[in-house]
Amino acid sequence: MSKQPIGIFDSRVGGTSIFKEIHALLPNENTIYLADSANAPYGTKGEQKIVELSIKNTELLLNKGCKLIVVACNTATTNAISILRAKYNVPIIGIEPAIKPAALQTQTKAIGILATKGTLSSALFHKTSDLYANSITIIEQIGEGIVQLIESGKTRSPEMTGLLESYLKPMLKANIDYLVLGCTHYPYLIPGLLELLPNHVKIIDSGLAVAGQTKVVLETSNLLNTESKIPKNEFYINVKNTEVMQSLLGDQFNVESLKF
Amino acid sequence: MSKQPIGIFDSRVGGTSIFKEIHALLPNENTIYLADSANAPYGTKGEQKIVELSIKNTELLLNKGCKLIVVACNTATTNAISILRAKYNVPIIGIEPAIKPAALQTQTKAIGILATKGTLSSALFHKTSDLYANSITIIEQIGEGIVQLIESGKTRSPEMTGLLESYLKPMLKANIDYLVLGCTHYPYLIPGLLELLPNHVKIIDSGLAVAGQTKVVLETSNLLNTESKIPKNEFYINVKNTEVMQSLLGDQFNVESLKF
Repeated sequence: MSKQPIGIFDSRVGGTSIFKEIHALLPNENTIYLADSANAPYGTKGEQKIVELSIKNTELLLNKGCKLIVVACNTATTNAISILRAKYNVPIIGIEPAIKPAALQTQTKAIGILATKGTLSSALFHKTSDLYANSITIIEQIGEGIVQLIESGKTRSPEMTGLLESYLKPMLKANIDYLVLGCTHYPYLIPGLLELLPNHVKIIDSGLAVAGQTKVVLETSNLLNTESKIPKNEFYINVKNTEVMQSLLGDQFNVESLKF
Repeated sequence: MSKQPIGIFDSRVGGTSIFKEIHALLPNENTIYLADSANAPYGTKGEQKIVELSIKNTELLLNKGCKLIVVACNTATTNAISILRAKYNVPIIGIEPAIKPAALQTQTKAIGILATKGTLSSALFHKTSDLYANSITIIEQIGEGIVQLIESGKTRSPEMTGLLESYLKPMLKANIDYLVLGCTHYPYLIPGLLELLPNHVKIIDSGLAVAGQTKVVLETSNLLNTESKIPKNEFYINVKNTEVMQSLLGDQFNVESLKF
């Protein structure tokens, strides 16, 4: 069982940032990644549809023998994770914006969060922020257009810089010292953000936490892959164009187009 | 299954500090705690004997229906956790000194660790400290006599103060800013330690991390108890005297003597 792969899915290719953190922390693990781009975005769909798509992705991964599922998508986590956990026996790990560590560590008592509309309005997000951030100012900003630019290969571009500058402006005015990235695409913005942010503002995303949770769960359940041979890391996307995903992942991994 | 208890065992009563963290973070959970005081200390025994005792405790907890086991004992974790994880199907969580967070956060590049002889000399401890603390000075101090004083009800006493002063002296001379508590008894020393330590020295123990890991594992495996009725928290010790354990836990919990 421990040699079986970790399954990861996202509505698009952004969750590859989560894959990278998992692969860095657990280099022995076999993985299978599904980008459900044919059905993206999930954020504009109703809860029932998101649950349906999440079940479809999970069952495909379970049919491929996955020992653990990572829902590398904030929207799918919020809407479907309880149902997935109740329905399947394998451990299921989700993702949510890292408000808690930011709220615990801020010195200026102001933090910024950049996320999609669906994530900012979701119940899970508001529950988390209520719990930990009562005395802290949270500047919420919808990252309108960012995902589209990344998906068209314009992660580093004048358009992106302009967009980010306008989104950061109210945050910097409020003197934030933590910027929370609430979408799996956004870690790809970090090099650009570092150029725009003053030195004292720290960027925090959920990738490392998700990887850490994956490790703890595998370890405590005796599911860590201790085999020393080179792992198999598979990537599937259900649209024809594999180029953007391939460029985000780099040449050492191979992306395939697959109907699902 | 989610209504089944969390099982916790330690070679003595110190692991009640871990129980308290778990209970604080997961107040809905039923728990069963075993203090194997009749066989304490584990630290002076050979590996095979420690594995045997850990198996005995784990099987008693599994026979009582536990859904997850917390090995709330540094010595039992180091010596037996891999074997327990390979042998049983439930998730098994262990404890080790919190060197890593201390090493990552120290500003003075010097941290202190107070632990039993067995923990300080164990392979796991040295592996962890090698990994994270290469450029950091670690002042190790065996807490000779501390457990005995706690077990005789002398947690706050002139003898304890004298002992702690002598153990802290070389650490303070080395300008530590983190003191790692590497034994489950030691969180009971915190009120006394706070009086002896300068304000800038932070105390760090593993209780919160263990509770956090327990939560993550229960959550991801759909094993969280969501029932709202008051949980059952049981405590068993295999010596006749229940007094010290009772006084550490306080009146809201009931300690029973049980042969095992």
